[in-house]
Amino acid sequence: MDIVIPLFDRFEPLDAIGPYEMLGYLPGATVRFVTEQPGLVQDVLGSLPVHVATRYSDVERCDVLLIPGGGSFLAMVDDADFVAWVRRMHATTRFTTSVCTGSLVLGAAGLLDGLPATTHWDAVADLEAYGAVYSTERVVRHDRVITSAGVSSGIDMALQLSALLTDELTAQAIQLYTEYDPEPPFTTGSVAKAPAEVVARARTLG
Amino acid sequence: MDIVIPLFDRFEPLDAIGPYEMLGYLPGATVRFVTEQPGLVQDVLGSLPVHVATRYSDVERCDVLLIPGGGSFLAMVDDADFVAWVRRMHATTRFTTSVCTGSLVLGAAGLLDGLPATTHWDAVADLEAYGAVYSTERVVRHDRVITSAGVSSGIDMALQLSALLTDELTAQAIQLYTEYDPEPPFTTGSVAKAPAEVVARARTLG
Repeated sequence: MDIVIPLFDRFEPLDAIGPYEMLGYLPGATVRFVTEQPGLVQDVLGSLPVHVATRYSDVERCDVLLIPGGGSFLAMVDDADFVAWVRRMHATTRFTTSVCTGSLVLGAAGLLDGLPATTHWDAVADLEAYGAVYSTERVVRHDRVITSAGVSSGIDMALQLSALLTDELTAQAIQLYTEYDPEPPFTTGSVAKAPAEVVARARTLG
Repeated sequence: MDIVIPLFDRFEPLDAIGPYEMLGYLPGATVRFVTEQPGLVQDVLGSLPVHVATRYSDVERCDVLLIPGGGSFLAMVDDADFVAWVRRMHATTRFTTSVCTGSLVLGAAGLLDGLPATTHWDAVADLEAYGAVYSTERVVRHDRVITSAGVSSGIDMALQLSALLTDELTAQAIQLYTEYDPEPPFTTGSVAKAPAEVVARARTLG
């Protein structure tokens, strides 16, 4: 089972690494990061240069494509070759997935037109501009396409995906191994729950 | 504010990157990864080589020390120079922290003797061997020392720590920015809740 995660400069670390942590424990799965030019790829926070050895254009098919978001989505959606590659890959996958603003890349590839999808809460208008129908669900599945909300939602998505790719026992074991029994310290994790001053402050962080 | 995260080969990706994602948005904070020999450091799953530029022994003080776990803890606890460095750093920090089996490094440095602490659910005996008093809490704080449970618990710990280092509004904004409103697909995220067959299966994953 070949799982491919494209990383471009300014990727959001948890968008990519949350799902990688979960999917990396799937028996028989290989998770590969791919990029435009092999070498070091820097994250949006600036302290996590990851060495990516594989050029995306050298990959011709995969079982799962997972597009993380972050500052990298801008370069991704503007790169016609990359967007065309995403479209070609989608024809080969069992599941084509995204975390956070990674869904905008799926939108640019024409994969979300008229379909329910999600993205980071502050990028909803961008998603709708691609013809997607925004859903407030944290993980949105339509047939082979799964999008998830902002940053940390990729963990929930990847565990659901793990069950689809294998079975519930395996996914449950991964959830236990990674001790994913979250206790968020505050109730401000979604715009539906956060007070206006928290939303305003969060908008200054990105 | 200088936050330092040592990475050794076979580190558990989410142990390090979950907290990095949260702490990296703290205004005025710098998060730095450090290692034994600068260069590429490979994670336990084998697909995430991170380029780490700073030798830990070149760091003489920091505000926060955060030790991730994973397969790297074995090399860490066996390295007397590193353990001595952790002890020296602790004398300079505002908070000395760990995720997962990273707490065993704090134990080896003598920082947990007689104190409440936690670790990955499958490493409790190892923790107790260092004289720590195991707590079933997900995040355990004793004065300046904060330990958290397995892998994903570092996210909860880092958000609590963010509030301690700055203020609740900032921590709440980070929780919203990263859309941390978790919806785990199963109820098997802790040994207290998981059926025996899930525990048995999880033990085969590591």
